Amino acid sequence: MQDITAPQGMKLASWTHAISQSTIQQLLAVATQPDILSFALGLPAAELFPTEAYAEATAHVLTTQHHALQYGMPCEILKHFIVQLMALRGVVCNSKQVFLTTGAQQAMSLLSRLLLDRYAPVLVEETIYSGILQAVEPLQPQLLTVPTDLETGMDLDAVEALLASGHHPAFIYAISDGHNPLGVSLSLEKRQRLVALARQYGIPILEDDAYGFLYYDDEPLPPLRALEEDWVFYIGSFSKILAPALRVGWMIVPESLISVLSALKEGSDINTATLSQRTIAAYLEMGQLPNHIADLRQAYRFRRDTMLRAMTTYFPAGTRCSQPANGMFLWVELPEMVDMEMLLKIAVEQKKIAFVPGWAFSVKRNHAIDRSMRLNFSCCNPERIIYGIGRLGELLSDAI
Amino acid sequence: MQDITAPQGMKLASWTHAISQSTIQQLLAVATQPDILSFALGLPAAELFPTEAYAEATAHVLTTQHHALQYGMPCEILKHFIVQLMALRGVVCNSKQVFLTTGAQQAMSLLSRLLLDRYAPVLVEETIYSGILQAVEPLQPQLLTVPTDLETGMDLDAVEALLASGHHPAFIYAISDGHNPLGVSLSLEKRQRLVALARQYGIPILEDDAYGFLYYDDEPLPPLRALEEDWVFYIGSFSKILAPALRVGWMIVPESLISVLSALKEGSDINTATLSQRTIAAYLEMGQLPNHIADLRQAYRFRRDTMLRAMTTYFPAGTRCSQPANGMFLWVELPEMVDMEMLLKIAVEQKKIAFVPGWAFSVKRNHAIDRSMRLNFSCCNPERIIYGIGRLGELLSDAI
Repeated sequence: MQDITAPQGMKLASWTHAISQSTIQQLLAVATQPDILSFALGLPAAELFPTEAYAEATAHVLTTQHHALQYGMPCEILKHFIVQLMALRGVVCNSKQVFLTTGAQQAMSLLSRLLLDRYAPVLVEETIYSGILQAVEPLQPQLLTVPTDLETGMDLDAVEALLASGHHPAFIYAISDGHNPLGVSLSLEKRQRLVALARQYGIPILEDDAYGFLYYDDEPLPPLRALEEDWVFYIGSFSKILAPALRVGWMIVPESLISVLSALKEGSDINTATLSQRTIAAYLEMGQLPNHIADLRQAYRFRRDTMLRAMTTYFPAGTRCSQPANGMFLWVELPEMVDMEMLLKIAVEQKKIAFVPGWAFSVKRNHAIDRSMRLNFSCCNPERIIYGIGRLGELLSDAI
Repeated sequence: MQDITAPQGMKLASWTHAISQSTIQQLLAVATQPDILSFALGLPAAELFPTEAYAEATAHVLTTQHHALQYGMPCEILKHFIVQLMALRGVVCNSKQVFLTTGAQQAMSLLSRLLLDRYAPVLVEETIYSGILQAVEPLQPQLLTVPTDLETGMDLDAVEALLASGHHPAFIYAISDGHNPLGVSLSLEKRQRLVALARQYGIPILEDDAYGFLYYDDEPLPPLRALEEDWVFYIGSFSKILAPALRVGWMIVPESLISVLSALKEGSDINTATLSQRTIAAYLEMGQLPNHIADLRQAYRFRRDTMLRAMTTYFPAGTRCSQPANGMFLWVELPEMVDMEMLLKIAVEQKKIAFVPGWAFSVKRNHAIDRSMRLNFSCCNPERIIYGIGRLGELLSDAI
């Protein structure tokens, strides 16, 4: 919670009394310091960015496209490439259903404002990515929550019970693959059941697929959007598969909603930076993204395995850990209670290591959350992962 | 007004029934076609973009800054350069008061959400930039309106009468220099009186200074923020002085509001594209922006004068026109009623010329609006301006 003090006598909108900057954003200042070994944030590995190719694409756009720096319409070529990317996820769509956004977060913000009336209910998991909470916060929604199983994902019995009892949330927020922060992916059976519930009760699903392309098993499961076209609003992003500094993402939505979303986006930031759109399109035209993603999958799989092995060695016996098939995060439940705030403070100050305490993602506090942490495995190289998990393990041995 | 049709049975937020994409955005599709001679939009002259220098700055950032493509905090160096830019506008501020945004439009959107409760009143001019209306639209505000004098700007007697009668708008929206669409700048006397009213009644002013750097007389007047620190929220943008394709703007606000704005922005799009921030900072470091702005002022002054002269020659006798000291727009009032919608249609289809009818900016319809149009003078070169004004004049001779 922030201390919000307007200049004397100035009145702010009423919802601002409850606003808070996320723990994640506050940790960004710490975690991006060069001497910090960070397991805290969802950062891609900086050394793997395709910087040279992207520089080449930018130079090409600025040299050859006369209006590269001008206002422009959403980039049609980019939309066509996104349709091709979606096919890799098993999703059939057309470019008129593609809506470009200033990152996945803007997609959540726009869809929240599109679907959610003030004070209306939304359905989220008890432990969930804080970005969706920030997107809905100005609308002061009623948060309906359901638990998550660490092996199969969202508790659909709880979802069905809520819907059957008459609750009608404006939407259900779901991360089918590489759940942030829990690292779990929805089982295929649950995917099918979830979209059936959405259809049956007429509830849209916001499917946040930021991590869908980063799968580490042989065959990824289809996202919800591959199973249901009308009731699933798919959210994708270039942040995790190309570069977060560009702030370009997309939605796949029913074509009939594009015009209202365009008006809402125009009022929010006019359009997504057209130079970034053009440059990403030029990079995609070079045809290197599929190979780049394959490289990321290989590197991140190895980092995940390295972190899991190191935890077996260095973390207290009885530590539970998710076994993520996708994404960037491990969810860790320690065998005993730990003062996570104190542990983080000591870890940062004495060992120069950062992580995120589990409660930072907690909508509804449950018993396990106070001994949980989220660890990112994509950002640090394997040597640093082993080193950092070792040091964290030492602190835990002292603390438990 | 759009035809908003959600998939069958899907409920959208209640405010969406009234949403509309702006006429400007609809015209963008027309005006950016290569064969159209456009006086319609606020486009900078594409041939004057500092493309080579910007390409050099981008290459420099991508080559030398290891984390250029990574998430990051708002760029401190860029904030310091903005403090220096503000000094050129006569504004004293420090970098802790600088808040980076995804263009000026996002500043309007964030400040609207910060200050405005649902259904609460805001004060705008009867004829005003549609972007502010789109920013407040989801909050369904009560629009209090005042007229604008084409030579001295906003009618402050009307503002004072509203405030004195007990209205308490969440903010007053003001464009002190190069008013969009009216082309007028506020007189110095009115600037002083407006900030005094803001202080007296405790009403924040959103000062949209997108055009402040583009002044064509010898000495520009100080913006409102130079006269009042607490009650004026200054909005600046790189779109008109550097390039709109980057979507980077800024606010100068009281430091105590930075944390709540950060939380609100984080929920909206996490942050402004850090690659763009870094690249603009690198471009500013090259020291070329002041000279670039001087070049723009010279070129645009000549285009403004060319358009004014051509209108004297080709437009009907009795045509009234603003004499803008700043910005990109002329406001034209024809001596007689014209069916503007039909005129635009004919102009685009037969002459390949686009403009914006005055009513596109009209909150409260008045008599003159139906014979008014906004013409942009920055985008086309002088030969095309003369040619286009000549063809529009011919159509007007036929129509009147």
